[in-house]
Amino acid sequence: MPELSKDTVLCISLAGRPSNIGTRFHNFLYAELDLDFVYKAFTTTDIVAAIGGVRALGIRGCSVSMPFKEAVIPLVDHIEPSAAAIGSINTIVNDGGVLTASNTDYEAIASVIDSHRLDPTASVLVRGSGGMAKAVVAAFHGAGFTDVTVLARNTEAGPALAAAYGFGWIADDPAPGASIIVNVTPLGMNGADADALAFSPAQIDAARTVFDVVAFPAETPLIRAARAAGKDVITGAEIIALQAAGQFARYTGVTPTADQIARASAHSRA
Amino acid sequence: MPELSKDTVLCISLAGRPSNIGTRFHNFLYAELDLDFVYKAFTTTDIVAAIGGVRALGIRGCSVSMPFKEAVIPLVDHIEPSAAAIGSINTIVNDGGVLTASNTDYEAIASVIDSHRLDPTASVLVRGSGGMAKAVVAAFHGAGFTDVTVLARNTEAGPALAAAYGFGWIADDPAPGASIIVNVTPLGMNGADADALAFSPAQIDAARTVFDVVAFPAETPLIRAARAAGKDVITGAEIIALQAAGQFARYTGVTPTADQIARASAHSRA
Repeated sequence: MPELSKDTVLCISLAGRPSNIGTRFHNFLYAELDLDFVYKAFTTTDIVAAIGGVRALGIRGCSVSMPFKEAVIPLVDHIEPSAAAIGSINTIVNDGGVLTASNTDYEAIASVIDSHRLDPTASVLVRGSGGMAKAVVAAFHGAGFTDVTVLARNTEAGPALAAAYGFGWIADDPAPGASIIVNVTPLGMNGADADALAFSPAQIDAARTVFDVVAFPAETPLIRAARAAGKDVITGAEIIALQAAGQFARYTGVTPTADQIARASAHSRA
Repeated sequence: MPELSKDTVLCISLAGRPSNIGTRFHNFLYAELDLDFVYKAFTTTDIVAAIGGVRALGIRGCSVSMPFKEAVIPLVDHIEPSAAAIGSINTIVNDGGVLTASNTDYEAIASVIDSHRLDPTASVLVRGSGGMAKAVVAAFHGAGFTDVTVLARNTEAGPALAAAYGFGWIADDPAPGASIIVNVTPLGMNGADADALAFSPAQIDAARTVFDVVAFPAETPLIRAARAAGKDVITGAEIIALQAAGQFARYTGVTPTADQIARASAHSRA
């Protein structure tokens, strides 16, 4: 890293349990692009004072993770429409004390729907009903998909999420047949559910595209099975890198190339 | 600089007009001592929210400069006695959300009084009555000096400062004769007063020790004249390095050596 000065711009993240991913991703690109910025992850037990500090110290950008994605909404000055629609933000940009919030998870998902040329007439099955599932369902809706089903055991959040976009909800696994299957639960994530396969082999077999938002590991049991079956695959690692790149562009005004994003992502996960 | 992680400890400064000195001094020593810390200067227009942010973000240390040295006092949890006595703080240490304030300017001055073996029975003439003059007069008082005169044109702050310690005050230059003469005004500082000599050649000639708290330039007209006359000399550059080293030790728990302080100081002024 280059030497810091009083003019070096600070960006931070706020999370209940900070990881090193953002810190390594952003600082890698600052060095790569020769930008006088520095990034560091923080946690807090006082989100109101923390955001007050972002404003008072002129911290340029603040990435927001669980459990603060909804609590920060009343603390900012402006919210971009897509973030307001899903009631969840992950990015705050500070322009001279004026805080604007957005949701780059939504944008990253919209971006892969586009780059993978997913067909809006295809049937979509989304497993999950948490904050990230909101971003996924909203992004499919935004891309013109109409045949979307929310599969969630949660009998409050599941139907509420589906109804918000006029989609269907089911509590139990349907018969195989959805063309695009999306996992937005912790199934397959490092930890207790690491060995869990989020969709049955028959569901995978029937699908054309398999999308897992779990980012750790990069290859979940679902992704491994989908690759083995020759499916079009979208990984959580891809989403986390794209959403971080979206934050990077907002904070710095510089849009990194796909190659730079890929190398920063690899560095951040090393 | 080494790569930052989520565990890297942040220390900052708050000043109306930040300089690069502290940022370069502290980051130099972090690298030298292989400490996982990073330091950056900030300014703010909302000192209350800024200190709230220090607390909420777990910022480990906060150096405080003009014009915030008094305004932060009601915002901290504890104040060390020497800082409370002079009503001015320049250092905040955050121990898990508990903020303790101190004044390392006072300590730096006490330290040079000791290291230069200044004689407590000697006569002292202090020119100035601002915040730093308070620290100087308090430190001479704390070291047992009794023959101290405050020389200040300010007819409120001058006598008030002198009276607080039972010392005398004069508005106009006395006849030469003081053994220790101390400049705590901007006379000789880079800028409008750069060519001003804070004490007359006759005062310098009569003195044994010449002490200038002006740190920029390191060699003021007063210091240059004192050196030419073979006097014992104490410079503002020495004070600024010692007070920063005191902050460094409080923030990190590591006391740098005299050689490390000298090299960090040279780097910070380069």
